[in-house]
Amino acid sequence: MDHALGLARRGLGNTWPNPAVGCVIVKDGRVIGRGWTQPGGRPHAEVRALMQAGEAARGATAYVTLEPCAHHGRTPPCAAALVRAGIRRVVSAFTDPDPRVSGRGHALLREAGIEVVEGVRSAEARDLQRGFLTRMTLGRPMLTLKLASSFDGRIATASGESQWITGPEARRHVHALRMSHDAIMVGGGTARADRPSLNVRGMGCERQPVRIVVSARDIPDLPPEGAEFGPLWQLAGDAGVVMAQLGSRGLTRVFCEGGGVLAASLLRAGLVDQLLGYTAGRVIGGDARAAIGALGLERLADAPRFRLVEMRRIGADLMHRWLRD
Amino acid sequence: MDHALGLARRGLGNTWPNPAVGCVIVKDGRVIGRGWTQPGGRPHAEVRALMQAGEAARGATAYVTLEPCAHHGRTPPCAAALVRAGIRRVVSAFTDPDPRVSGRGHALLREAGIEVVEGVRSAEARDLQRGFLTRMTLGRPMLTLKLASSFDGRIATASGESQWITGPEARRHVHALRMSHDAIMVGGGTARADRPSLNVRGMGCERQPVRIVVSARDIPDLPPEGAEFGPLWQLAGDAGVVMAQLGSRGLTRVFCEGGGVLAASLLRAGLVDQLLGYTAGRVIGGDARAAIGALGLERLADAPRFRLVEMRRIGADLMHRWLRD
Repeated sequence: MDHALGLARRGLGNTWPNPAVGCVIVKDGRVIGRGWTQPGGRPHAEVRALMQAGEAARGATAYVTLEPCAHHGRTPPCAAALVRAGIRRVVSAFTDPDPRVSGRGHALLREAGIEVVEGVRSAEARDLQRGFLTRMTLGRPMLTLKLASSFDGRIATASGESQWITGPEARRHVHALRMSHDAIMVGGGTARADRPSLNVRGMGCERQPVRIVVSARDIPDLPPEGAEFGPLWQLAGDAGVVMAQLGSRGLTRVFCEGGGVLAASLLRAGLVDQLLGYTAGRVIGGDARAAIGALGLERLADAPRFRLVEMRRIGADLMHRWLRD
Repeated sequence: MDHALGLARRGLGNTWPNPAVGCVIVKDGRVIGRGWTQPGGRPHAEVRALMQAGEAARGATAYVTLEPCAHHGRTPPCAAALVRAGIRRVVSAFTDPDPRVSGRGHALLREAGIEVVEGVRSAEARDLQRGFLTRMTLGRPMLTLKLASSFDGRIATASGESQWITGPEARRHVHALRMSHDAIMVGGGTARADRPSLNVRGMGCERQPVRIVVSARDIPDLPPEGAEFGPLWQLAGDAGVVMAQLGSRGLTRVFCEGGGVLAASLLRAGLVDQLLGYTAGRVIGGDARAAIGALGLERLADAPRFRLVEMRRIGADLMHRWLRD
């Protein structure tokens, strides 16, 4: 299952509106097929792994990081494919919350006489599928808010100079994380001030993330969609409405890179699932530009809370990752 | 020498105006004496270690984290004591920059026929003696600036609520660090607003740090000096002048806990040697109180720079330590 989770991870950011799934087929202690959800969400992981295994799949065990689908969508159901291939045993990490599946995949396998083991490495798999689960349960994508700031939480000098507070290694790390998200989102002020490229560079990205600008006003000309840039969506309105729209368009993982006003409205609405901080060893001072806008909090107890899940030195900077408490 | 460095560390914060030194005496592969500078700076480490070793010191090796002193100060010179005790070999970490010593301790030992090895674990010893070295070379104490803030660098809500942003484990850690400094310093605004206790609690502190309030105005009544509180010094004026005064009064390690105005003036003057951050998993927003006041920087290149030397989870918070670059 660990191997299957590793394969699933390869699809993150590439597979929306589908979840990024991994599948490993094992027979007599040997791996005979491996697959993960392909860019755009198909073929599914199981189909790829079964193709690789071929006739040898008969009597084998399949490890999948999510319950195999049971419905005809853009692809025929994977549960049926596993039955047809003669798989003897399926080990799955957790039940798909998608109402079109939700236990029916496992049931279909059992009806066909296949032994099904559920809930293996379920916590890790849920963590990996957080974006898909958030869309299924809350109707919106999972949201990561990234802040690259000075030691004192500033993103630019008072005069607006912001390039670069953090070092090249941290910026490269940001590109790797952008790639594991479906979309990169910024506010209108940032789009107008920085004309950000909002793409993944230098990583061999197969499917560029969607570029989202949240603004009711005109936004500057950004490069057209192509091999180097994903689709460009402009949305406006309340943070909750914007996030619901992104969910209904199929996004599962959104990476917000500011600015301060958009970040504050997302935090106020309780829509930030993950905070990602890159802290540089510089101090810019209280007159410099703050990373996050006004929240209007009276009491500390009302401040959104997150728990530390990772910290790491990246180049000269400190990376720290927090999940919503 | 590692053992001697560990012993030296016990004295940090206790030994000013003297350096915190460690000494281990070894004979035939066995430790026969251990000592470290005692509270107030005397007896010196060597004297304590020699007392423990007694007659057995004859023919033994002494490991010291700093060149033994050669001058008559408040105590007779340690170099002479080592000679008198019949020590055969001295291994020392580095040469004392104090002009009254500065190589003369080593010379005195050699003249007496003792073998002297210099520069062992010199980097670690210098790190440990940073406060003493700063006072000797720059005429001021080493300065640690501590900031306990939210993820976005805020120390209080807009309405002023600040207790507590970080958790009890981080606050306990702060007390341990206060104890390893000679003095705790705050600005007048913080003294008036918070009436801070500026002492070490729950750690069995032998010598409470000096309490320093930097303010030209009246400061509130703070508790009198005693077992629980160190001396209270009020100073005023330019940050550089204040730090020079503290150096001439013998302080080697000062722990500054804010507020933002004092922190900014120390940073602007290039007087901060170490930054200590405690970051909590809360976001309070750009309208809340900033940890550091205005620095008036136009260009990012002028921002004071620090390099990351330590990061650690402490309770629910992230501790990160940076040294001046």
